[in-house]
Amino acid sequence: MKKVEGGVTAAEGFQAASTAAGIKYKDRTDMAMIYSTEPCAVAGTFTTNVVKAAPVKWDKDIVKNSAFAQAVVVNAGIANACTGTEGLGYCKDTAKKTSELMDIPEDAVLVASTGVIGKQLPIDRICAGVEQMSKKLSGDLTSGHNAALAIMTTDTHEKEAAVEVELSGKKITIGGMCKGSGMIHPNMCTMLSFITTDAAISKEMLQEALSSTVTDTYNMISVDGDTSTNDTCLVLANGLAGNEKIKEKNEDYETFCEALYYVNEALAKMMAGDGEGATALFEVKVVHAASKEDAVILSKSVVTSSLTKAAIFGHDANWGRILCALGYSGVEFDPEQVDLYFESAAGKLMIIKDGVAVDYSEEEATKILSENEVTAIADMKMGEACATAWGCDLTYDYIKINADYRS
Amino acid sequence: MKKVEGGVTAAEGFQAASTAAGIKYKDRTDMAMIYSTEPCAVAGTFTTNVVKAAPVKWDKDIVKNSAFAQAVVVNAGIANACTGTEGLGYCKDTAKKTSELMDIPEDAVLVASTGVIGKQLPIDRICAGVEQMSKKLSGDLTSGHNAALAIMTTDTHEKEAAVEVELSGKKITIGGMCKGSGMIHPNMCTMLSFITTDAAISKEMLQEALSSTVTDTYNMISVDGDTSTNDTCLVLANGLAGNEKIKEKNEDYETFCEALYYVNEALAKMMAGDGEGATALFEVKVVHAASKEDAVILSKSVVTSSLTKAAIFGHDANWGRILCALGYSGVEFDPEQVDLYFESAAGKLMIIKDGVAVDYSEEEATKILSENEVTAIADMKMGEACATAWGCDLTYDYIKINADYRS
Repeated sequence: MKKVEGGVTAAEGFQAASTAAGIKYKDRTDMAMIYSTEPCAVAGTFTTNVVKAAPVKWDKDIVKNSAFAQAVVVNAGIANACTGTEGLGYCKDTAKKTSELMDIPEDAVLVASTGVIGKQLPIDRICAGVEQMSKKLSGDLTSGHNAALAIMTTDTHEKEAAVEVELSGKKITIGGMCKGSGMIHPNMCTMLSFITTDAAISKEMLQEALSSTVTDTYNMISVDGDTSTNDTCLVLANGLAGNEKIKEKNEDYETFCEALYYVNEALAKMMAGDGEGATALFEVKVVHAASKEDAVILSKSVVTSSLTKAAIFGHDANWGRILCALGYSGVEFDPEQVDLYFESAAGKLMIIKDGVAVDYSEEEATKILSENEVTAIADMKMGEACATAWGCDLTYDYIKINADYRS
Repeated sequence: MKKVEGGVTAAEGFQAASTAAGIKYKDRTDMAMIYSTEPCAVAGTFTTNVVKAAPVKWDKDIVKNSAFAQAVVVNAGIANACTGTEGLGYCKDTAKKTSELMDIPEDAVLVASTGVIGKQLPIDRICAGVEQMSKKLSGDLTSGHNAALAIMTTDTHEKEAAVEVELSGKKITIGGMCKGSGMIHPNMCTMLSFITTDAAISKEMLQEALSSTVTDTYNMISVDGDTSTNDTCLVLANGLAGNEKIKEKNEDYETFCEALYYVNEALAKMMAGDGEGATALFEVKVVHAASKEDAVILSKSVVTSSLTKAAIFGHDANWGRILCALGYSGVEFDPEQVDLYFESAAGKLMIIKDGVAVDYSEEEATKILSENEVTAIADMKMGEACATAWGCDLTYDYIKINADYRS
């Protein structure tokens, strides 16, 4: 597996465009479009929130029922959530416009929105944006990069990742982009993530590969514990790499999953580290848990603890809050058996042995916690299972961003 | 039922004292003692965190096995959690000292600690504090008030409540004090709460009364979703009111429960409103839910949502976040049926009807949300159950307090 440059246009046959449609923001792009020259197998995972945004409903239907997909239209600024039948109508209007311009079926057009809940989309501007983008579509890496910039809301940087692997002697590429920031606590999928690949793979195998990797990637990140109404992850596979089509769980399928996992994990970590107001990526590794389920619950409990997140912001080795968060997770364990370590580029330090603090150097601990990627490792000594969760610190800027997000 | 002045010394036969033992803070009291002239029936509820502080272990044993209790010794500054056998030994040392000074059995002395996790208590100072307090015990209301001040950590004010009711023709009093602030998300009980009553009631009925009221009071508040290692609620009943002893669920029991509920709710709301850094008490009422369990989960999901709490801080009627938090709670409902209102001393306003925003005035909404007690009411239109949860806004000061709590 080889890491390569680029995002959604890294794979063969995928084009992208972006434009400033004036939906909410001034002086920046706020719409993106992904287009494949060939029809694509499509798979998706979506928010488990009972309150689902209109684009989530639209896309779920397409992923389930359409023979193929060929375009994705995304806007930032307005989420098109809690917008009733009017909002769902705007999904259809967007798809219809795209369908006419690109000469593809209406049910091959996926849509996605991110931003404020409850406002209606300015559909005239959306359609004008689609028209502008349809003329600018290009397969170069810059177009993909610009698309990643256009879908940001409170993100501070664009998020892309791509890899190459060989399947049945053919080079295939998987690339993707995503946006995250606030209301990030994905359950079955994350905010907005778009993956493209030129691999030839059946729709069923694509969905299975996506679902299996989402569990250990997007579903393990949290910025604030709030599961959005819009979480969407879509994968489009156009088959242009010419590999023998994956139709079953063979060796090629495993290789494809590994590559897809790499891209999804890279994007998920970028989202966690760029959580609203965040100054650090906070990684929590739980090892030797009694079961995988326990390990997942324990690691997520720590990564979502407000007190722990505030301590990470303060570079404070406040291990009591971590033990406390393990303790209230609902998982049974022996607290007098737990070891805890902090680790970062600045080193690794044992903090607790068998539930009690060792005589560690606070200075050394602060040095380790002052890096912008820090890891807490909890050894439960209960079994063989492990899990890793990703989050970020809780900062003044999270409050600043969210106390007046709408204004 | 009549609301009266005072706290733990409001009921007949209860005395209190406080002292500056120099455990962590400078220039303030940090230890409190409650003493009853008569042996008391005792009941308690404690944290469900797997990581239990030493005083929790000590008190659970007493509540379960002792014939009676007669004193409670509390310190602020150090939590005596994650302190191993040494920490548990300090509970015994404290009880022994108190036992000798007050001439009561060692297993009639309850202890409680709040503060930093992981540090050992300075047991010499604790014992010196007990000695000082044993000489200052008094039944006046000021002593109770000073005890409520002494147990604070990051609380900004002391918390007391008391009521009088009549049982079998006799006036009985229930009074209490508590402290909260951070790491507040009680499960079966809250941080530290001490209730005293001169009612005559059996230990079994006292425990039943406490457990039944805790569910709808302390267990419905949350400051930050972090369930502490030290949560403790104790009730001492010394029988001095001379009412016919409550031994079964009769009318007197119901009256006693109502009075106990009043005191517990009052203290719980004080804790929520004085959450770390809070500027407002945030109340969430869920009405017409399909079941009580659903109503509890829905109201807690909103009251713990970081995004909603930040919006409350900003006086922003960001109702999308509330619908979103209802949606990810795990409870099934029809989002296109939900009505939502904001209410405070400044008025009541409908915001959403049937899942979509009505044409409300943002100015009016901001006015309502600018009070220091604000309520969100969600009408689910699914059934007849309701629940109320209490929390607070998420502010810059929460971060400030917790990014360097230990320093």
